[in-house]
Order: sequence, then structure tokens, then C-alpha cells
Amino acid sequence: MSADCIFCKIVAGQIPSTRVYEDADTLAFMDIGPVVKGHTLVIPKQHHDPITCTPPDILQKVILTVQKVASALMDSLGAAGVNISQANGKVAGQIVPHIHFHVIPRFADDGHSLNWLPRKYESPQEMSDFATRIRTNIR
Amino acid sequence: MSADCIFCKIVAGQIPSTRVYEDADTLAFMDIGPVVKGHTLVIPKQHHDPITCTPPDILQKVILTVQKVASALMDSLGAAGVNISQANGKVAGQIVPHIHFHVIPRFADDGHSLNWLPRKYESPQEMSDFATRIRTNIR
Repeated sequence: MSADCIFCKIVAGQIPSTRVYEDADTLAFMDIGPVVKGHTLVIPKQHHDPITCTPPDILQKVILTVQKVASALMDSLGAAGVNISQANGKVAGQIVPHIHFHVIPRFADDGHSLNWLPRKYESPQEMSDFATRIRTNIR
Repeated sequence: MSADCIFCKIVAGQIPSTRVYEDADTLAFMDIGPVVKGHTLVIPKQHHDPITCTPPDILQKVILTVQKVASALMDSLGAAGVNISQANGKVAGQIVPHIHFHVIPRFADDGHSLNWLPRKYESPQEMSDFATRIRTNIR
């Protein structure tokens, strides 16, 4: 447990939450500021952050809970789709620094939209150069 | 392999891609329409879709490749953060129906922003009712 971490306090029951699922390693609970109603957060019970510093076995347990919640949102709410979103770093929009996945039910008329603006590389070479830098840093 | 699936054709080498990582079960390659330059896609080599129908062991392999790519984006590009996004269903913005995770490097001046508009439940009871529906549909 990390002191002052709101999600650790939720895990510990020191801050109330509305839980929808938990197992030994993971917890799923309602986001109180839903982008779409039904929006659920999935976290590891242990404190880890960001995704790059999360133990692989924990991350694997978390993604299975994400999958369970995604299925439940479709089955229970009749969602036509689901968005999964996970932010690392303030610059990425992360607010609570305890790794969490947003699982968001989607409906045709839900009023939500992704701000998805594809851009272009200046040239095939520029994309290739980016790829080389990334490729040589995979561990 | 699923006929007419662009990502299956990329896996098979029938459509070119710029790869940054692959192993027996997963592939990471550059998104040619990057939201932010360096934007990488991670997919299972097998055709599965959506996340709710993806075998858990495959999903677990995919998320580890997502983690590797996220680390590489931070290490290679000096990204200050990373967004991970996965869409299921047209209503969620999914275009290619082969499960894929977007791994997007973030920088303070990258011009990208999430369209994240938290809403409120009408009452604590409404949130509780949603949670009950979700909870009773977790499998």
C-alpha cells in the first residue's frame, strides 16, 4: 500500500467504493465520474504505476479482470461496444498514479466520442526512423 | 486467419507493415495514421475479436507486448507518458475488427487530447443499480 494513494485506500476499504468484482489480486469498481454510465475501473490491489513498472504477472491478472468487466457491460447493459483506456503520466491524462484501466460501455446515442485525429508522417523514411528507434529499445 | 482481415494480411506479410516487435503470438507495428508520432499497434497473430471473445491466454500475451512497447516508447522517444486504447465495436470507434491495442506516446506539446468528459449519476442509487447489474453479470 502506498500512503496517500486514493486507490490503495479504496482497496483497503478506507475510502468507500461501489465494487463490481474482486479477486485476490484485482478489484473492479464504479468510476464516480463516468464518461458513460456503467464506466468501471479495474486496478491491481497492489500499488503499481505506471504500466511499465507493473509486474507482468499482475498486469496479466488485471487484463483478465478487464475482460470480465467488458463482457459484463455488454451482457448487463446491452452495450453495443466497449472502450478500454489506460493512461500513464499526467501528460496522458492520468490523475491517480495507481495503474488503472477504464472500461467504458458504448451505445449509439451515448454522446461520447474519442478525439481521434490521425496524422501523417512526413515521409515513409520518417516512420521507418521512428520504428527503428522503438525496435531497438524493446526489452 | 480471417479472410479480408487487413491485420491478418499484415501478419501473413500480404500487406506491408513496419514492424517493431514480434514473437510467436503477438505483433507490434506502426500505425500509419498516428495520433502522435510513434503510435504503435499491438495485435495477436491469431484472428480474434472483440476482447470479450479473445482467449484469455492470448490476451495475456498481448498485454505483455503492449507493456514492452510502452516501455520502448518512453525509452526511445523520451515520451513523458503513454496512452493505451482498445476499442470494441464500431460504436466505440473500432475500424479493423481484429483485436488491437493502440500504444500512443505522449509529450507535453503533442497537440493530442482525450475527449474526457466525466458525468454524474443522477443519484447514488442509480450508480448502485448499475453496479448491481454489472456485478451479477460477471462470469
